[in-house]
Amino acid sequence: MKAWQFTNTHEPLVLNEVDEPAAAPGGVVIDIKAAGLCHSDVGMLEDEGWLSTLAKRPITLGHEVAGVITEVGEGVTDWKVGDRVGFCPTTSVGAPGYGFDGGFSFKAAIDQEALVRIPDNVSFAQGAAGTDAGMTSHHAVIANGQVKSGDKVGIIGFGGLGSIGARVAVLAGAEVYVAEVNEKVWDQAKEIGATAVAKSIAEFKEAGLDVIVDFAGFGTTTAEAIETVRRGGRVVQVGMGRLEATISTKALILSEVTLVGSQGGTKEDVQGVYDFFATGQLNPTITEIDFDGIPEGIEKLKRGEVVGRLVAKIAD
Amino acid sequence: MKAWQFTNTHEPLVLNEVDEPAAAPGGVVIDIKAAGLCHSDVGMLEDEGWLSTLAKRPITLGHEVAGVITEVGEGVTDWKVGDRVGFCPTTSVGAPGYGFDGGFSFKAAIDQEALVRIPDNVSFAQGAAGTDAGMTSHHAVIANGQVKSGDKVGIIGFGGLGSIGARVAVLAGAEVYVAEVNEKVWDQAKEIGATAVAKSIAEFKEAGLDVIVDFAGFGTTTAEAIETVRRGGRVVQVGMGRLEATISTKALILSEVTLVGSQGGTKEDVQGVYDFFATGQLNPTITEIDFDGIPEGIEKLKRGEVVGRLVAKIAD
Repeated sequence: MKAWQFTNTHEPLVLNEVDEPAAAPGGVVIDIKAAGLCHSDVGMLEDEGWLSTLAKRPITLGHEVAGVITEVGEGVTDWKVGDRVGFCPTTSVGAPGYGFDGGFSFKAAIDQEALVRIPDNVSFAQGAAGTDAGMTSHHAVIANGQVKSGDKVGIIGFGGLGSIGARVAVLAGAEVYVAEVNEKVWDQAKEIGATAVAKSIAEFKEAGLDVIVDFAGFGTTTAEAIETVRRGGRVVQVGMGRLEATISTKALILSEVTLVGSQGGTKEDVQGVYDFFATGQLNPTITEIDFDGIPEGIEKLKRGEVVGRLVAKIAD
Repeated sequence: MKAWQFTNTHEPLVLNEVDEPAAAPGGVVIDIKAAGLCHSDVGMLEDEGWLSTLAKRPITLGHEVAGVITEVGEGVTDWKVGDRVGFCPTTSVGAPGYGFDGGFSFKAAIDQEALVRIPDNVSFAQGAAGTDAGMTSHHAVIANGQVKSGDKVGIIGFGGLGSIGARVAVLAGAEVYVAEVNEKVWDQAKEIGATAVAKSIAEFKEAGLDVIVDFAGFGTTTAEAIETVRRGGRVVQVGMGRLEATISTKALILSEVTLVGSQGGTKEDVQGVYDFFATGQLNPTITEIDFDGIPEGIEKLKRGEVVGRLVAKIAD
């Protein structure tokens, strides 16, 4: 079968002929139906720092994977041929595209530990997109933000993750306040249910926000969040636009604010996103391409030309 | 009765003759037995910023108060004449020495809401010291640090609060690592049960600390704590040696660290400290002075000449 493989930094992906995988004990093989593209694929091609995350080279990239089980290995009892599944990329068995061959191909093998069931009315494209951007946003808002119905929630940054995070918060029953410097997406923020939109989260000081999730991470945004959230409130740091922040420890102490870093997520977060997809009420923009268009898709991501999440449709 | 009263910033305390208080409905009057002195008393005398915290002037200072109930007001059923009590300074009824006359006198009136019972074998001096330094340390370690038996806990700063916090963590069953630049107190840290002492918390990176409580708050200490605590660990910020910290949001995110500000405490924390005092195992150094020595005591605090907590013994 064909696979888009990574060989080295600054080298284009190579379309190699590779062996079809077999199911290991405790594992399954799937027919890949959809594979998401991600900014970290751009990073992989450009930054040597990523090389150490790879278990082998060449390796088939693609860490957002969804498909249908075609083979189950010895000892697998919870899954059967025909099950629709996504791969959680953050379990102990490692991530597709890093620890083993990923989704930019036609079949993939993985340990059952990483499988999450895709509800019948959720598309494979959603199933793929939900494993990374969806999981990360859900983890930040629900797991680390502890957002619940009735909360007032600030969302900083209404990009790929922030827009999903804002919608997840709305669907969780929160009153959502969005801070986004790009006014072009303000209408979109209101369409997904935001109560108010402004350029800076500091403008919502009077709202008494219970939780602020910073998807931007410009340092100043962290500092503003700590000084804006209500006494005893939570600030969740997801975005890493810069690597440092200078914060007021005085405000942190006097208002007993909690600042928590959030990275990735868990199978429960992937499942949570799938459940929101299944309601039809979480519906982030997905741009679909085909298998042959994967290298050009990564280029488009690099040039910032992609609207929403980019997913390669591998098979119907 | 006599009372040491504050009139204005940069003015010495004045020994005034004031009326004895009467018990309001829902309140009590106590004979003051001990009143603690605190660095914030130094601040009050030197910094105009504190004036806005005072409900009236002149006002009797002293926010760490312990004594014996001599009168109960209408509607008070849980307390009786003869009960030994401390005042929690952080309840909704306000703080003695700020919202109403405090402990640098012979009698004090307060709402029953603020009362905490002093165990029989706990001295009034301990009862006074436990209301502020004790409460704050307990709140940081137990309530915000969530320290439990078996945890590995880092304590930054082994001064008045840090030494109590370290001992509270030891008594809670934790393995305690102390970071303190002043080597003169290293032996004392080991005496109260610290496993190891070093100049910087970063030296304990390999220990895999679950919780780090920063009683120093020099900004750099916050940053080091975030980069030292284990993945998923907690950093509690108590000390405000500086008002800002430049932290690595990268480390915060990639290790999913929680940073929480801690200020003051609750009645439960005062009670928790009294319970530790009652075991005889928490025994912070207390230097006693008499009523007449209160102004000189504040001067000694200012000059850094006080060992442990300074408490005025008002009556036997």
